[in-house]
Amino acid sequence: MTYRRLLAEFLGTGLLVTVVVGSGIAAQRLSPDDVGLQLLENSTATVLGLTVLILLFGPVSGAHFNPVVSVADWWLGRGSGTGLAGGELAAYVVAQCAGGIGGAVLANAMFAVDAGMASTERTGGGLLLGEVVATAGLVLLIFALARTGRGALAAPAVGAYIGAAYWFTSSTSFANPAVTVGRMFTDTFAGIAASSAPAFVGAQLVGAAVGVLLVLVLYPSAGRAADAVVVPHPEPTELRA
Amino acid sequence: MTYRRLLAEFLGTGLLVTVVVGSGIAAQRLSPDDVGLQLLENSTATVLGLTVLILLFGPVSGAHFNPVVSVADWWLGRGSGTGLAGGELAAYVVAQCAGGIGGAVLANAMFAVDAGMASTERTGGGLLLGEVVATAGLVLLIFALARTGRGALAAPAVGAYIGAAYWFTSSTSFANPAVTVGRMFTDTFAGIAASSAPAFVGAQLVGAAVGVLLVLVLYPSAGRAADAVVVPHPEPTELRA
Amino acid sequence: MTYRRLLAEFLGTGLLVTVVVGSGIAAQRLSPDDVGLQLLENSTATVLGLTVLILLFGPVSGAHFNPVVSVADWWLGRGSGTGLAGGELAAYVVAQCAGGIGGAVLANAMFAVDAGMASTERTGGGLLLGEVVATAGLVLLIFALARTGRGALAAPAVGAYIGAAYWFTSSTSFANPAVTVGRMFTDTFAGIAASSAPAFVGAQLVGAAVGVLLVLVLYPSAGRAADAVVVPHPEPTELRA
Amino acid sequence: MTYRRLLAEFLGTGLLVTVVVGSGIAAQRLSPDDVGLQLLENSTATVLGLTVLILLFGPVSGAHFNPVVSVADWWLGRGSGTGLAGGELAAYVVAQCAGGIGGAVLANAMFAVDAGMASTERTGGGLLLGEVVATAGLVLLIFALARTGRGALAAPAVGAYIGAAYWFTSSTSFANPAVTVGRMFTDTFAGIAASSAPAFVGAQLVGAAVGVLLVLVLYPSAGRAADAVVVPHPEPTELRA
Repeated sequence: MTYRRLLAEFLGTGLLVTVVVGSGIAAQRLSPDDVGLQLLENSTATVLGLTVLILLFGPVSGAHFNPVVSVADWWLGRGSGTGLAGGELAAYVVAQCAGGIGGAVLANAMFAVDAGMASTERTGGGLLLGEVVATAGLVLLIFALARTGRGALAAPAVGAYIGAAYWFTSSTSFANPAVTVGRMFTDTFAGIAASSAPAFVGAQLVGAAVGVLLVLVLYPSAGRAADAVVVPHPEPTELRA
Repeated sequence: MTYRRLLAEFLGTGLLVTVVVGSGIAAQRLSPDDVGLQLLENSTATVLGLTVLILLFGPVSGAHFNPVVSVADWWLGRGSGTGLAGGELAAYVVAQCAGGIGGAVLANAMFAVDAGMASTERTGGGLLLGEVVATAGLVLLIFALARTGRGALAAPAVGAYIGAAYWFTSSTSFANPAVTVGRMFTDTFAGIAASSAPAFVGAQLVGAAVGVLLVLVLYPSAGRAADAVVVPHPEPTELRA
Repeated sequence: MTYRRLLAEFLGTGLLVTVVVGSGIAAQRLSPDDVGLQLLENSTATVLGLTVLILLFGPVSGAHFNPVVSVADWWLGRGSGTGLAGGELAAYVVAQCAGGIGGAVLANAMFAVDAGMASTERTGGGLLLGEVVATAGLVLLIFALARTGRGALAAPAVGAYIGAAYWFTSSTSFANPAVTVGRMFTDTFAGIAASSAPAFVGAQLVGAAVGVLLVLVLYPSAGRAADAVVVPHPEPTELRA
Repeated sequence: MTYRRLLAEFLGTGLLVTVVVGSGIAAQRLSPDDVGLQLLENSTATVLGLTVLILLFGPVSGAHFNPVVSVADWWLGRGSGTGLAGGELAAYVVAQCAGGIGGAVLANAMFAVDAGMASTERTGGGLLLGEVVATAGLVLLIFALARTGRGALAAPAVGAYIGAAYWFTSSTSFANPAVTVGRMFTDTFAGIAASSAPAFVGAQLVGAAVGVLLVLVLYPSAGRAADAVVVPHPEPTELRA
């Protein structure tokens, strides 16, 4: 484990939240009369931004940006020498959550939004079912690509998946505990009230379990390394902690 | 034939209908004042979602998700050892239609829509001509790519095609009997009344025949396997029925 | 020269006009309150549709779909054995113009639009300058890709170019005499009055000459065949005329 | 250094400004009621157009189109024989700024906009923070791709990045001194008052420094040539100055 990998997870998750929150603020301000148009602007920016962030940080850290992806990576890779080790997993999750909060703070600062926790409650069984579906699909996609040697497609595929899931799930597809934590720290379009977050995270964990199960059924051979992207040029020397 | 392949067709067709129906519900609710904007949101989500689903399930089942594609695959591949066998074809079609219905039910559940059949009638010669054109183009595209060794492009190309066909055909391009069946089971933006469905399916069959004819004229050499996508890592052992 | 190649140019140009005109009609009907939204719907459908059409017909005919591209192909390839011969050029242009008209008729039929010539006048020096710029850029792009061995990128690149040019040129970028002819045959969003068409075509020819000049300055080595796309599996036997 | 390379930087930067300014004018005129929709039209056109321009001019000049990219290229490549030499750098910057102005003039001419300097003031710490973030991300992206041998992805990745940054930064992401200069010369949607430009350029320089620092931390090995795109077929003979 190196600082470089944790920095990549911190920056990547942080900038992902900056993209989600920042474009949500811009959309809310510029298109005040149509919530659907706001969501289209928000989802379009996220498709593009997430794809780029995976390209950018993938060769350093695998571009997980998401605790459930890191957990699934650890679980699916245990005993095979691939995947994260237990200590790495904990460090990844801490870096991702810290990044998520930092990304919301950065978006607030750029748009001169007062600091403050989100007030938007997001509750109800339909939304939680949406999070289960969204997260199951995300986990299945990432490891299906990894297990068929197509990790190089993860960047555009994951970006496209989230862009679709903004619309086809009722929850607009958070699908990520670190992003959920980050989105608690902005009282804007993309925010989520702290009171609603635990159920969202719970649904995401259920969804991740469903996704892992589908991976094992549909793609039983482990194939390649579980990193979400191809790592074309790993650096030979790293700045070790 | 394995359960794994049928599961992939069931899930893939199901999630395709979930994408179409779910994003339609979201669009209708969030952009109530402009039907065109609703369709843009619906078609954008479908381009992204369909592309991802083909990437996701292609290595398992070929990602047909569509009875007319499976029929064309069987017809164009007969006698050559490629393509579906007759019994496989029947199982594929059943899995696709069951998936289509399940996908609509899932979308209804996520968005807390009451169960019920669609009431939107879609009739008229212009719409049926639209379905003929849409389905002919879809079949021609899939098998043109397969016969020129470009099956790896099927995922983005088919997604893009359907996204365009939402707009350039008068019927918004159902182009798929299993999706048509599924869309009967939701009384929302993307629904179709059961009374309108048979003519849609009939037009799709005519379109598929036109598409196959164009394939034979423009790409007379059979080339590669007729599966719609490249299968980079077929699993050596399967869970046989 | 074979019928297959001319059929591909006829169908490709025709369906391109169907995409442009059909999506224009849909946009005009569904988003009546915002012309910009109509153009966004129209341009989005065209990006997706044009990309697919080049993928679909490229291996057969090179997917020119445009008389100025065919003329430039003939001019840049003369003496080298690549490029169209003079007789082929004439046949291509006829097939393209016939296709353009057929595509408009098909769109009218799908959307139940009465037959009739377009009434929308498109005049003024600004628009003609727009056509010069749009066509110069298109020709430069196609032959820059061909001369650097990147013809396989032509499909998405040309689609993206036209999608941008809908917006950055004042004329919405016709950039194609055959499409201009086809768009005379529909009195809808994408139509052009017959009285405005000759100046548009003239500006396109000027733009094509500018584009060829830039090709010769920036990419002086002829490189590969001038076909706009890679032809991965040319058919060995053709249905000769 | 050859005229061909400078011509490519001049044309590429110029057409980039034409895309930004022209699509902004079209959006402002066609969608007068929703500024968000205007920005969506503007950003969509820019994603597509910028991607194409990098494909088009990359093999000739590296497709920098941006003084801070050229400066970073010179700085990161000094002593290694890659990267621009000092004299080349100065010529690149002059060509880029001249192109930026020319591109605005061309857009004004196509849309029959009166010549005149922009009057839109863009001020405030939030916007300047936006420019720092936008430029840091851009520089990091370009050199991360170059240092991992993925320069061929620069065209779609940079296009996507700018499209996201239009939305997630508060400044709509100019991120380019030459484009900032060009946008002073149009009193339209995309314009910037001359009085606001120096602070924008200052913030861009700060952002570029942050980006270079992140490149050195995350991708310490220099890897390949620093040109932003792969140069598949460099011309053997050039028109030397």
